[in-house]
Amino acid sequence: MAKVLIVGGTHGNEMSGIALVQQWETGIDRNDYKGLDIECILANTEAIEANVRFIDEDLNRQFTLERLEGNAESLESGLARQLNHHYGPKGSSQTDVVIDIHNTTSAMGATLILPSDDEWYIRLGRYVKTQMPHANILLENDQPYMAHPYLCTLGKRGVMIEVGAQPQGLLRADVYQLTQEMLVHTLRFCYLDMLGNVPNLACCDAFQLGENVYFPVDDSGQRTAMIHPLLQDKDFQALYPGDPVFLRFDGTTVHWNESEVSYPHFINEAAYKRQNVAFSKSRKISL
Amino acid sequence: MAKVLIVGGTHGNEMSGIALVQQWETGIDRNDYKGLDIECILANTEAIEANVRFIDEDLNRQFTLERLEGNAESLESGLARQLNHHYGPKGSSQTDVVIDIHNTTSAMGATLILPSDDEWYIRLGRYVKTQMPHANILLENDQPYMAHPYLCTLGKRGVMIEVGAQPQGLLRADVYQLTQEMLVHTLRFCYLDMLGNVPNLACCDAFQLGENVYFPVDDSGQRTAMIHPLLQDKDFQALYPGDPVFLRFDGTTVHWNESEVSYPHFINEAAYKRQNVAFSKSRKISL
Repeated sequence: MAKVLIVGGTHGNEMSGIALVQQWETGIDRNDYKGLDIECILANTEAIEANVRFIDEDLNRQFTLERLEGNAESLESGLARQLNHHYGPKGSSQTDVVIDIHNTTSAMGATLILPSDDEWYIRLGRYVKTQMPHANILLENDQPYMAHPYLCTLGKRGVMIEVGAQPQGLLRADVYQLTQEMLVHTLRFCYLDMLGNVPNLACCDAFQLGENVYFPVDDSGQRTAMIHPLLQDKDFQALYPGDPVFLRFDGTTVHWNESEVSYPHFINEAAYKRQNVAFSKSRKISL
Repeated sequence: MAKVLIVGGTHGNEMSGIALVQQWETGIDRNDYKGLDIECILANTEAIEANVRFIDEDLNRQFTLERLEGNAESLESGLARQLNHHYGPKGSSQTDVVIDIHNTTSAMGATLILPSDDEWYIRLGRYVKTQMPHANILLENDQPYMAHPYLCTLGKRGVMIEVGAQPQGLLRADVYQLTQEMLVHTLRFCYLDMLGNVPNLACCDAFQLGENVYFPVDDSGQRTAMIHPLLQDKDFQALYPGDPVFLRFDGTTVHWNESEVSYPHFINEAAYKRQNVAFSKSRKISL
């Protein structure tokens, strides 16, 4: 029996995953995958109580082997070691699949983040996209699975569900429903895969993560521009050379000056304020 | 010469007012009201630095005479006394008009909050609505001006600009532009009023604040429902008896069981999470 761990509250102010875990008994019909051994947890209960992303540092950046083997210097690094002990350990995990649920202030819709391009992830991406054509599949294969710092990588396999737009600290029904829909399809895949019953699926569209783009700042480090209104809420839509990207406070526009089309996402994500990230680039691929 | 105080950052994670104050020199053409003595301040710089609504308690609830005359027990109550000393004192203020800029996670568009129905406020509301027909005018005359706890009431007159939807901790260009537009019209009114040149204006539609409506909870105090998708983002739209209000996690719907139409606003405002407020009621009036 495959062991699946569903995680909410890795970030304490992302309410859709927290609510889904809290409502697990009522919300989902488990008959579709009753062969799975499913456990649900809230990862960072102190951050949830304080209604913040984290207390000391980002829990979802603690799961490199290096950090897991170091000394716990923060609430979150201690928590990461505990979670790794109970559900991992990363690299030889007792958990088959970890599904970590997030939400974003960006209008990314229902996005499945795959931190590997191994065959299992490609089949999962194709399956979810087939069942849920409005979903976005985001491939983060810029580094090997084991090198990622994400909580979900403590499992043999791990994925993140990332849905938006939803402000921090509140729950929107539309985001909750999209999250639940993507979770159900992911669980259904795990169940069919356990049985060896996943059908062969054709390629599908997906996005491959690129670099971050930063807000323009002045000499004192203060932002001089906002996301342009024509780019705001246009996550995963094509951004062509010459398209507006930023609106400066003086009323002038900054245009996209790269030579290739890009597919921005995490546009104006509140959690990336300190790092000054405006959005992440991606390119469209066939998965 | 009329003295006007423009305030951003009364709540440290409401970025449109903060950005407008920071960009004051570049953003606004002052020729339209150069006869005004305008000062711009950021109210709660520690909360802004920490990217939170407040450090100890809500600054915008400290400006009753009782609290201003009590002992300062928190960062914000101390700050309120300082602001009252510099720009008030409330009740015999040296400042003619205080314009306090806020934003909300609710889809309230550009809303002008009037904490009094005195003749000056009625003329201001009519003027702004004439210049900016898409604006909402919200009258909070449930108690006298002097009894309100709001920062803006330290002025002889005070109003709040409240624009949304904008998540906490980030700036959207559309919200910034609506805020700027409403600020300019408010300043223009102050200038014309100083000259005695405000034209007589006919009545306009407005909303009068009613009671709060709370999320349903179970015996342990945990929410059992979300704002219904058909109500979410419908601020200031008519809610009729029988309309859906909440979607329970079990999939059932809670309908509006009051006998009269209402105009909800502050629907799903993140800052009212602790108080469990789902939205505030209002009724449509002629101002």
